[in-house]
Amino acid sequence: MEKRTEIAELGEFGLIERIKGMASPQQASTLVGIGDDAAVLEAGDHVKVVTTDLLLEGVHFDLSYAPLQHVGFKAVAVNVSDVAAMNALPKQVTISLGLSNRFSVEAVELLYRGIYAAAEQYGVDVIGGDTTSSRSGLVLSVTAIGEGQKDTLSYRSGAQDKDILCVTGDLGGALVGLQVLEREKQVFLSNPNMKPELEKYAYVTGRQLKPDARVDIIHELRELGVVPTSMIDVSDGLASELFHIGKSSGLGALLYEDKLPIAKQTYDTAVELGLDPITCVLNGGEDYELLFTIKQSDFAALEKHPDIHFIGHMSPVTEGFHLVTKGGAAVPLKAQGWKHF
Amino acid sequence: MEKRTEIAELGEFGLIERIKGMASPQQASTLVGIGDDAAVLEAGDHVKVVTTDLLLEGVHFDLSYAPLQHVGFKAVAVNVSDVAAMNALPKQVTISLGLSNRFSVEAVELLYRGIYAAAEQYGVDVIGGDTTSSRSGLVLSVTAIGEGQKDTLSYRSGAQDKDILCVTGDLGGALVGLQVLEREKQVFLSNPNMKPELEKYAYVTGRQLKPDARVDIIHELRELGVVPTSMIDVSDGLASELFHIGKSSGLGALLYEDKLPIAKQTYDTAVELGLDPITCVLNGGEDYELLFTIKQSDFAALEKHPDIHFIGHMSPVTEGFHLVTKGGAAVPLKAQGWKHF
Repeated sequence: MEKRTEIAELGEFGLIERIKGMASPQQASTLVGIGDDAAVLEAGDHVKVVTTDLLLEGVHFDLSYAPLQHVGFKAVAVNVSDVAAMNALPKQVTISLGLSNRFSVEAVELLYRGIYAAAEQYGVDVIGGDTTSSRSGLVLSVTAIGEGQKDTLSYRSGAQDKDILCVTGDLGGALVGLQVLEREKQVFLSNPNMKPELEKYAYVTGRQLKPDARVDIIHELRELGVVPTSMIDVSDGLASELFHIGKSSGLGALLYEDKLPIAKQTYDTAVELGLDPITCVLNGGEDYELLFTIKQSDFAALEKHPDIHFIGHMSPVTEGFHLVTKGGAAVPLKAQGWKHF
Repeated sequence: MEKRTEIAELGEFGLIERIKGMASPQQASTLVGIGDDAAVLEAGDHVKVVTTDLLLEGVHFDLSYAPLQHVGFKAVAVNVSDVAAMNALPKQVTISLGLSNRFSVEAVELLYRGIYAAAEQYGVDVIGGDTTSSRSGLVLSVTAIGEGQKDTLSYRSGAQDKDILCVTGDLGGALVGLQVLEREKQVFLSNPNMKPELEKYAYVTGRQLKPDARVDIIHELRELGVVPTSMIDVSDGLASELFHIGKSSGLGALLYEDKLPIAKQTYDTAVELGLDPITCVLNGGEDYELLFTIKQSDFAALEKHPDIHFIGHMSPVTEGFHLVTKGGAAVPLKAQGWKHF
């Protein structure tokens, strides 16, 4: 009998490693292939970065609580976020749609209203795509293209020992928002006359439904003259992303619990839901903030930035990955990440 | 009650027109957006062309007769074909996969064997992608990026009156092959002990399952110093593609029935299946040959090419689109095309 290995045994990252090993880039214009937030292509006086994401109804979004405009906005934002994570600026997106006959022209227009709202906000053009019928709900595939300079891109692999770990915004909100939305959906399903109470959860549900890509930070870093030594966006969770930077750079890292940014509503709602707020910050996905490292000499330039937080530093690989708790104990970090399989 | 317009009322092209009207490109590096085989981006000393296709199991392929390697090969080939149709050379592809738990790691490797075989054949690098779980079969989204020169790209809109219409290879085979595969599938479903008889249909089923993108023709046109005045690939059917060129260029066209290329196996099998061979040539999709126009002065350079056929010429828009039959009658062309909705 033929061997059958379940994808769950390898996981998404294991599967990517296996595929990546099957061939290596041959074209002169391919500067970087599989393995970072985006690929990098030679483009004369600049470089283009290219990234793509596939979003499937029932896996990545649930139309029973996600408005179509938000789904469209988020599909663009998550790709733009990968471009930003290269220290590049997004310029174009392509949009492919698979639509079951449940969707009307008006529904597609709502979706595109969100897509174009994101395009306007992030300064990108919608340059093409494909539209086809689907037998099972909405399929959304987005490819984003950005521009940067070869010598100022930020890779996952560029961190140095003692570089300062920075993260933008606050973390854990998208995961907590998802839990609230799932809870209200169950309440509604068991009693369709119940009106969901979502007003007091507006911040966390907004983090889940309509995340913002931090292109603003890329502009600000340029103005301040700071080039991150490494960067990644927080899509799978802070711990998971930190492992990517650490492993790609051949380093370990130390995080400080008391430095981790969490919004009050995220904290309070996590407690209400019986979740540990710090676990939400470390392992909650989909916040689409930027995690990056800077040289210590760049600290002064960013010190007063209201939305950049200094959460730890890189360390020799032999020291591993640890969280220093408020009590002063160093506990090993675990990357749970987002498991799609 | 809210208005509900079915997508089938507008069709794929009508829907694209509606979406396209919602915004226009703003970025300096976007040279051409939605509307041709690929978008065109400024890239310093060259231009990049970008195209994307979404392939869904049960809509675009049927794994009961399509081997996974062929599905992978075809997903790359159809995108490469769109790059070629711009008179550009393909260089990179991204691959996004949605996989239900029916697929094992070994199945994904088979699929990628086909993807990498196409990548090698067409000289492209696989530079990234996304892999996620799917609740309903295989989802494949491919984006291809190619390179060309701004002044030698071929658009749909560049044809001139009296330009000669050329098509590569032969047409109708992919449609006839699909009919054979569907027939054998029904035979198998009604009697699983029947072995499908496919040997004598190898050419037409191959056209359907593993089409070849005509990158070879792009190289040859360059060597011969010929720049097509317009070009498109035959994905929806010859008549439909001719309408695209005609409408984009503000022209009509005349086709000659006795010049249309059809393979003997395509002709014989069409007759066996009770299909009109010429209708298969005019309206069969997925042949992925190139339809293009040349100036009359370029005819001599291509005249002896064994795989380029001169099937008609462009005419003033007032003369419409006609097929001159073997009997000498001019009958109006209809574009049926591929209807996904």
